[in-house]
Amino acid sequence: MTKVIAINAGSSSLKFQLFEMPEETVITKGIIERIGLKDSVFMITVNGEKQTEVTDIPNHDVAVKLLLGKLTSAGIISSLDEIDGIGHRVVHGGEVFNDSVLINEETIAKFEELSELAPLHNPANITGIRAFQSVLPNVPAVAVFDTAFHQTMPESSYLYSLPYEYYKDYGIRKYGFHGTSHKYVSQRASDMLGRPLEQLRLISCHLGNGASIAAIEGGCSIDTSMGFTPLAGVTMGTRSGNIDPALMPFIMEKTGKTADEVLDVLNKQSGMLGVSGFSSDLRDIVQQSDEGNERAQLALDLFANRIHKYIGSYAARMNGVDAIIFTAGIGENSDVIRAEVLKGLEFMGVYWDPALNKTRGEEAFINYPHSPVKVMVIPTDEEVMIARDVTRLA
Amino acid sequence: MTKVIAINAGSSSLKFQLFEMPEETVITKGIIERIGLKDSVFMITVNGEKQTEVTDIPNHDVAVKLLLGKLTSAGIISSLDEIDGIGHRVVHGGEVFNDSVLINEETIAKFEELSELAPLHNPANITGIRAFQSVLPNVPAVAVFDTAFHQTMPESSYLYSLPYEYYKDYGIRKYGFHGTSHKYVSQRASDMLGRPLEQLRLISCHLGNGASIAAIEGGCSIDTSMGFTPLAGVTMGTRSGNIDPALMPFIMEKTGKTADEVLDVLNKQSGMLGVSGFSSDLRDIVQQSDEGNERAQLALDLFANRIHKYIGSYAARMNGVDAIIFTAGIGENSDVIRAEVLKGLEFMGVYWDPALNKTRGEEAFINYPHSPVKVMVIPTDEEVMIARDVTRLA
Repeated sequence: MTKVIAINAGSSSLKFQLFEMPEETVITKGIIERIGLKDSVFMITVNGEKQTEVTDIPNHDVAVKLLLGKLTSAGIISSLDEIDGIGHRVVHGGEVFNDSVLINEETIAKFEELSELAPLHNPANITGIRAFQSVLPNVPAVAVFDTAFHQTMPESSYLYSLPYEYYKDYGIRKYGFHGTSHKYVSQRASDMLGRPLEQLRLISCHLGNGASIAAIEGGCSIDTSMGFTPLAGVTMGTRSGNIDPALMPFIMEKTGKTADEVLDVLNKQSGMLGVSGFSSDLRDIVQQSDEGNERAQLALDLFANRIHKYIGSYAARMNGVDAIIFTAGIGENSDVIRAEVLKGLEFMGVYWDPALNKTRGEEAFINYPHSPVKVMVIPTDEEVMIARDVTRLA
Repeated sequence: MTKVIAINAGSSSLKFQLFEMPEETVITKGIIERIGLKDSVFMITVNGEKQTEVTDIPNHDVAVKLLLGKLTSAGIISSLDEIDGIGHRVVHGGEVFNDSVLINEETIAKFEELSELAPLHNPANITGIRAFQSVLPNVPAVAVFDTAFHQTMPESSYLYSLPYEYYKDYGIRKYGFHGTSHKYVSQRASDMLGRPLEQLRLISCHLGNGASIAAIEGGCSIDTSMGFTPLAGVTMGTRSGNIDPALMPFIMEKTGKTADEVLDVLNKQSGMLGVSGFSSDLRDIVQQSDEGNERAQLALDLFANRIHKYIGSYAARMNGVDAIIFTAGIGENSDVIRAEVLKGLEFMGVYWDPALNKTRGEEAFINYPHSPVKVMVIPTDEEVMIARDVTRLA
């Protein structure tokens, strides 16, 4: 039995989950937020109870010390020596990493090189890695990448129709994200279906505030909706997804914004927020739509329409599909979105049961028994995937 | 019996086709190129024979006079009075025009306003209109728009997931193009199938140097791959089609280009040209690919892959499809591309016959007789659509 901690470090936050492995029991979990700001917040579950502490946490080193101190002082572990491995989420592994990897100075140097491709994420992930290194220098650490699962995509999926030099010189290609989640739910789907992954054609819909769809054939990602960055693909909470590439210069000219400012609009003021005009949160939008708000209805329609079309295109990619999977916040909980997305897929053998579709946050089949294509709700668990890779590699 | 001339004016060219209506007989056709440059070229078919004349043609007024003079001097018509109507292709009709329209000063003013949305096309189209007005001021003229057929798209198809004000204030939405072609082939498909358009779900693939796919339900376009501009959608000869919108600022930073310069790369140096590195012409690419050129094979794969996926997504949009149509240069002539596009669509009922697929440039069914989804090759004819609208409206 070993204890493994899974870490997801953002620029001002640190999510953690401590596992007993190989049982995959969650011993504790929590999050530290507002790192570097006044009144940072430290939330942790102790003996099943959520504790919250507000204090100033100036940086990630202090956050990690606070967390580790709490683990021992609260009696969650008796000594730091009990921690056998640390798993870090690293967003971008580029073309270098097609699997999780043991962290050393050489790999950190590569994560730094790749920061160019994920300037908002990789530096924060590296800060988290460094913070744990300084406190637990001898505990093996593993990096788990959002992009690695999609490295199996063929060229015809990952290349853009741009001058080929852009790929060779600048690494411009589709990388795809949410890989750890897509991989987790595809493995769970195989278990639930009682069929080996190698024989399955799956479409995984990871629908949270960020959203991506993946075509998974034989356990390998062969296409996904996010691209060079997590902006591409379907409509999201605040992100536009795909638009006509000619729109950027047009919007720049019309609004007087720079390219980076327009990009900021596409990332933060678009998607369901931009269309509805009032919220990026699907729950608000569903509620307003029920009350007759047309723009809220429109935001729902756009979101569902884009996902629906990706399902069709990925079914075409694999000449059919065995199961469609819904996961992440919206995918696990919103029967409204699932219903809109699934409506009108009978032509490809999708028959879903509105009663079963009421399910929330639990593993479930929501198709009719006779449906050739199965439809599944599977809560994602990226943390356990990280813990497993630590156990495998550390 | 009336004579109608269909005109497609570009910035330095003028295509024309003279019809006897309502028989739709082509009396003559041709093109004037390099207008405004030295050694302009005037090509016209007289009694079935192509005649070419090289001379300096300084502007469209002179080009029109030359053309009309030739029509009488060559005895194609005995007097200009025989021309009963003129039809002009106008690329962008915005949200103002959902059908062809009789041209007057008011409509021309609207075409000018819409030039902002099609700065490369509408001004040239207007130049053509003005040139005919000055020589044949009393002959009724009709404008036929590339965008009009797509005005039936629902909001969920034509709106981008951008701040809603961008639509209201700047007209940012999907317009779609090639509408005259998609409309023509959908009507022909209905005739060939012997079924009313109202009952049909069609996917029309207009594949030329520009390429677009349309979902046509009950005779109405409900979605199409081109967008705010003809850059969006599938891979084309030199155009990128859809890319991650975050790529523009990244490419700007990497190459030091302005947004407009990057846009120029996306329009003119991307697509099959960019991927293959040597040509935008599918024939060159197929030949090189046959000779083992991997980048040529890659360009083919990307082009076919994108179209294939659109077919899946539009089938999902309509909960199935009755017929898939291939048209325009590549669609009518390339069995290689049709085969790649159609491969692996059996899941949705597409069974095509490789022997029948050998057809070139003629109306044909290429599906097996038992195929639930029909697959058709239909040469497009935008000029006859223009002539018909002139007859209907003038």
